[in-house]
This record gives sequence, C-alpha cells and structure tokens, in this order.
Amino acid sequence: MLDFDYYVPTKIYFGKGKENDVGRIINEYGYKKILIHYGGGSVIQSGLLDRVKKSLEDNNIAYVLLGGVLPNPDITLVKEGVKLARENSVDMILALGGGSVIDSSKSISHGFYYDGDPFDFNLKKKEPNKHLPVGVILTISAAGSEMSTSCVISNRETEIKKGFNTELNRPLFAIENPELTYSVSKYQTACGISDIISHTFERYFSTSHEFEFSDYLAEGLMKSVMEAGLEAIKNPHSYEARSALMLASSYSHNGLTSLGKKANMPIHQLEHELSARNPNIAHGAGLAVLTPAWMECVYQNDREKFIKFAKNVMLITDEHDEELLIIKSIDKMKEFYESIGMPSTLTELGIVEDDIEIMANRLSKDGTFVYESHVPLDKNLMIDIYRKCL
Amino acid sequence: MLDFDYYVPTKIYFGKGKENDVGRIINEYGYKKILIHYGGGSVIQSGLLDRVKKSLEDNNIAYVLLGGVLPNPDITLVKEGVKLARENSVDMILALGGGSVIDSSKSISHGFYYDGDPFDFNLKKKEPNKHLPVGVILTISAAGSEMSTSCVISNRETEIKKGFNTELNRPLFAIENPELTYSVSKYQTACGISDIISHTFERYFSTSHEFEFSDYLAEGLMKSVMEAGLEAIKNPHSYEARSALMLASSYSHNGLTSLGKKANMPIHQLEHELSARNPNIAHGAGLAVLTPAWMECVYQNDREKFIKFAKNVMLITDEHDEELLIIKSIDKMKEFYESIGMPSTLTELGIVEDDIEIMANRLSKDGTFVYESHVPLDKNLMIDIYRKCL
Repeated sequence: MLDFDYYVPTKIYFGKGKENDVGRIINEYGYKKILIHYGGGSVIQSGLLDRVKKSLEDNNIAYVLLGGVLPNPDITLVKEGVKLARENSVDMILALGGGSVIDSSKSISHGFYYDGDPFDFNLKKKEPNKHLPVGVILTISAAGSEMSTSCVISNRETEIKKGFNTELNRPLFAIENPELTYSVSKYQTACGISDIISHTFERYFSTSHEFEFSDYLAEGLMKSVMEAGLEAIKNPHSYEARSALMLASSYSHNGLTSLGKKANMPIHQLEHELSARNPNIAHGAGLAVLTPAWMECVYQNDREKFIKFAKNVMLITDEHDEELLIIKSIDKMKEFYESIGMPSTLTELGIVEDDIEIMANRLSKDGTFVYESHVPLDKNLMIDIYRKCL
Repeated sequence: MLDFDYYVPTKIYFGKGKENDVGRIINEYGYKKILIHYGGGSVIQSGLLDRVKKSLEDNNIAYVLLGGVLPNPDITLVKEGVKLARENSVDMILALGGGSVIDSSKSISHGFYYDGDPFDFNLKKKEPNKHLPVGVILTISAAGSEMSTSCVISNRETEIKKGFNTELNRPLFAIENPELTYSVSKYQTACGISDIISHTFERYFSTSHEFEFSDYLAEGLMKSVMEAGLEAIKNPHSYEARSALMLASSYSHNGLTSLGKKANMPIHQLEHELSARNPNIAHGAGLAVLTPAWMECVYQNDREKFIKFAKNVMLITDEHDEELLIIKSIDKMKEFYESIGMPSTLTELGIVEDDIEIMANRLSKDGTFVYESHVPLDKNLMIDIYRKCL
C-alpha cells in the first residue's frame, strides 16, 4: 500500500429543509457577499432559488446571480463569473446544483485571483494557490464534486475538456437535503447512480497495490448504492434511498475508498471520448455501457480480484467454477444497469463502428499513450472494449 | 434516519517514517512553541521522542516536555500541563501516544484558556469555546481519540471518570505510522482491536433508526478489523494489518459509521464500571467479555438486526434456522475474542458475584437511571449481562 495524506474539511449539513439554513450557515463563516451560481430553470421553478435568496436576505447577506451553467460547463461562462465576482467584490461562491455547477464555481473561485485564463489551471499551465471559498447546495447525487478535489471544465472553442485536481477544490461546505433530488428524472437518477458506482468501482480495481481496509469500505459503498439505486428508481420519494445516494455521491469520490491505493479511472477515460464524440451522451449512461465491457476485456489479468468482487459485491455464493463466477458477476452488472434503465450498447448512444478508431486514436494519442491502470489501457485494449459495446 | 452535521477536519499523514516530518508539518501550520505530551518510557526507549525533538529543532520549533500520562489519565497531570503550557506560552500541544495521552492533551488544550478547574468540562459545568490545537503522533491503535470528539479524564481523588464531547476535541492532525505499533504487545494489540470493534459494533446496534448506508460501511469496517486483527496478532510486523487497525481506530470513532443514526454505547457504559471496580482491567478486555453477553441478553428484542449481523459480518451462510444463526454468530464472536487472546469471563478479570450489584447500582444510580440504547439498559438488564459473564 501507498503512503498518503488525507484531509477532507468539507462540512456536511444533512437533512430535510437544511437549504433554508444557508444564510445562517454562511453568517457563521462570516461571508458577506455571495455569487449564487446555478444552471437552468429548475432551481427557479422548484422555488429553491427563492428560498436561498430569502435565507440570505434574512441574514443580511448580499448576493449576485449567475445562472446558465450547462452540462460539460464551459470556460466562457466561468470568465463571465470571474468578471461578475470581481465587479461585485464577492467573498464566497454558492453553487446550487450538481457537478457541472460546482465545477464551474470552483473554476470561478480560482480565476478570481488569477489574471490569466482560468482554463490554464485545467491545462496544467498554472498551479492554483488562492481561491474564493465555495459552498454547495446539492440538487443531484452523481459527480461527487461537493467533496472532491476535482474540477472538470470544457472549452467548446478548442474542443478540449480537461480536469485538474487540487486540495483547494474541496468545497467549504455541502448542504445535502435528499428531498431536493425527488424531482430528478429516472434517467438522470440512473446516470447519477452509474457515476457514483464508477467512482468506487474504478478505485476498487484501479491498482495492483491492494489494501483490504479500503476495499471493505468500497464493497460496502457499492452494495449500498446498488440497493438504494434500485429503490430510488422504483420509489423516487424514498427518503432513505435518496439519502444513501446523496452521501454515496460525496463519499465515493472524496478519496475514502482508495486510502493507501492509487486511484486510476480507465473507464472514465474511455467515457470522456464518447461525450467528446457526441455531447448528448450522458456521462453515467456511457459508463454503464462501458463498465461490463471493460470487465470482460480485463478480468483474465486479475482473476483473483474479480472473484472477490463477484462474491463480496455481487453476492454470488452458489457458483464454484471461478470462470463462471466471474462471468455471472458481469452478467449481473449488466442486469443491474438495465434494471435502472441504462442503455447496454454504444449503438443506443449513437456511436458506430467508424467512431471507434477515431476515439481510440484521440485517447491513445495515435497509439503513443498508454493510460496507467490496473490493466494498462493501450490503443488495442481501447478498441477491444469499444467494440464489445456495439 | 436523523439529520446531522458532519465535519472532520483532522488531517491524516499516513506512512512509514512520517513522524520524522512532524517539524515540517507543524511549521506549515505556523506554530512555534510546542508542549510535547507523552506517557511512560516507551517513547523514550524506542527513540521516538528523540526523533520528534530533532525534527522540531531542525525546523526551529521550541518545545517543553511533559511525560507521565497513565492509563485513565488524571486531572492532576492535566493541571500541571496547563501550568507548564501557560508559563511557556506554548501555541500547540503534540500528543505522543494513544487515547490516554491524546485525551490528557485535549484537556490541557481547553484548560489553557479557562481559569477554573479543567475537570469542569468533564462535569458539564462549563462548555469549552476556545482551545489550543492538538496534534497527534499515534503509537497504539485503539481508542480513536486521534479523530474523535471525545475526551475522557479521571479524577482519582473523587473517584470520578467522565468524558465530554465537543467538535473542538477533534485534533488538528494525526501522524499515523503503522510501524510504530509493531512493538505493542499482543495483549495490548488485542485490547485495541476489541475497543475498535466496539466503537462500530455499538453504533451498528445502538438505535432503532436504521440507515443502511452507514450499516454497510460499519459491516465493512468490522470485517476488516477482525481479519487484520487476527493477522496482527499472528504477525505483529504485518504492515498491512497494522495499517488497517490504525485507520480503523480513527474511522471507527470519528462518526463515519453512524451517519444519520444515534450513537449509544451501552457496552462501554457497562465496561466503565468494571474499570472503576478494578483499575487494572484493560478497557478492551472488559469489552471483549461483555460483548457476547450483551448479545445473548438483548437479541430477542431485535432478531432482524442480529440476523443481518450474523450474515453480513460473521459471514454465516449455512444456517437457515434463525435462532441457531444468531446463536452461532455469538459463538463466533466469542471464538474471535478468544483467538486474539482476550479473556471470556469476568472471573478472569477478578470480578466476583458480589461486585455485580454494586456495579449495577452505580451505573443505574440505584435503579433510578436507564441508559438510552437499542434495548434500554436498566438495572435488571445490567445484572443479567454481568451475571452471564461470571
């Protein structure tokens, strides 16, 4: 196992109606002028934005508004946010939404103190060292950005989408009221479930440095997400199921399930190319298609770990033939994704045979780059995995 | 499930030789004068204290020393620590040790800013609101004080031992090098394992408010501790087993395994009376004796949860009779404690029939107090449990 430092100072305020305390909470931190950042009309229609404004006003906290964040948040809006934040001398950013809104907020928070292009952080041209604090009111359980070190931004002009990781990216606080996710559609809920699973699933397999302690927590988390996921799809108003998904979103990507291990994300890499090829593909849907194919293509390289997964996570106890045990666990993963309404082929996502070479070339830099992973992801493996999904 | 706030800002520095970085680490926080607090001669004999001093000196950090912390740390030494800290205007306390040293350090940290008796915090006469930061170099995996909100201090004069909880009690950082625990004796290692299990085991059963997400993490943690515990007893130099125990110590008592649940500790309450009756009884040894007896006395009140425990933690899959399944899981717990070298009866700990009424009277305040728990712990239940252990 590896040495590590672990520090997650994001405070979680969890429960029904907690978003109405946001003014009091920010008051305790002492911030006085807030940039409220959000996406489309849903936070307006649901009344959430109005309740947040009221809570801030009740606590004499000033604010400016910036909506319009889209999935795969763009650097253009980030720059607009930086300008607005500076003009109004805000001292904190409040993200109302999910991963896209939070990542856009993180990017603004770094850009506020940087004279260059905030995309420089994503391009690794510049290390962030100072930023505005970011608070979150979470409205969808998925990306885990509310507790994570990551910030993924797109530049639509140059067609580059890049993430960067820094401890500074961990938000100051996250307000988590599972009821706010009751209205998330079945499809979006399922995409979120798929993303949450992937964050822990990829950590589970991502490295040859084993550390059982982390794996035990990872197994518990994956079982919880699958169970709660099925329940939330069946009964969108299940408070407990929505709660489990919300917490799992945060804990699946804050590093807990890879303590002492390297966290590589090969399936995420493969998925980013799908979204790049067709921006309408939801991240979670792509992951759901790719995951069983990845398993089929790599399990021969680490049968022991896949047997452990089959027994401890997929809970298959009645199969003594190891090969069949693994195959059954992959089939069970496919069934799970189908049962929550996820697609099972790339064809359903509009990706065709001709796209595969293009995506593999992009990801492997024309065959010159191998992504470090549990099983090294080279161009041939990329093509094999994509082909299996057609 | 319950609403909650969750905030654990303790930074973990984990790995071989990390204690040699302590000067650099403290330098980054900006502290300049440290009270180094420790127990007996082991940190001197092992050379740990010398290495810590050197690291501080290399970073131009001044220090004063206060050793002598005993198990069940006493308020008298705390007062001495407060005096020393004030005389030297220290700005941080560094605890070198386990639960007793850390708790003594926490008590000094509050006493530093309080003119009254620091035991007032334990007696709930006074709420702490300001304290010195406490850093930890952990040398035994057990109490979990390195990340917890708790601080238990004894007053030998008045024969009162009391804990108090506050978010202020969470240390600033914990340096965790599993190699420092290689020299912990088998018996002390086993006592630590027993304490770690109990912190999660009691949270698992402690309340009727179920929340599967937390239970899944709790199950993973308990399985990890039992597996690593057996390995560490067999092979005290197993880095991975010692690592799992060290992290489990921290995560078993930092609140992670009771998110959304009430955390009651009935077996800890019962054990405190054993230690009060005979101060030579190690806390973990008492817990190991009491836990199976507690299970036997309460399982009829919540068979469903005990069945879940039998299947998911004790991994008993071949018993379809529910009653026998539970009984088998209790037997398996007893076997586990025995296999790590823990006693199985109160008699072995020097407690006799005549002590039982005295202990039950003390804990139940002569029958007038019932401890809130999964199954309410009244005087009759106390007596039943103690009797089963004879």
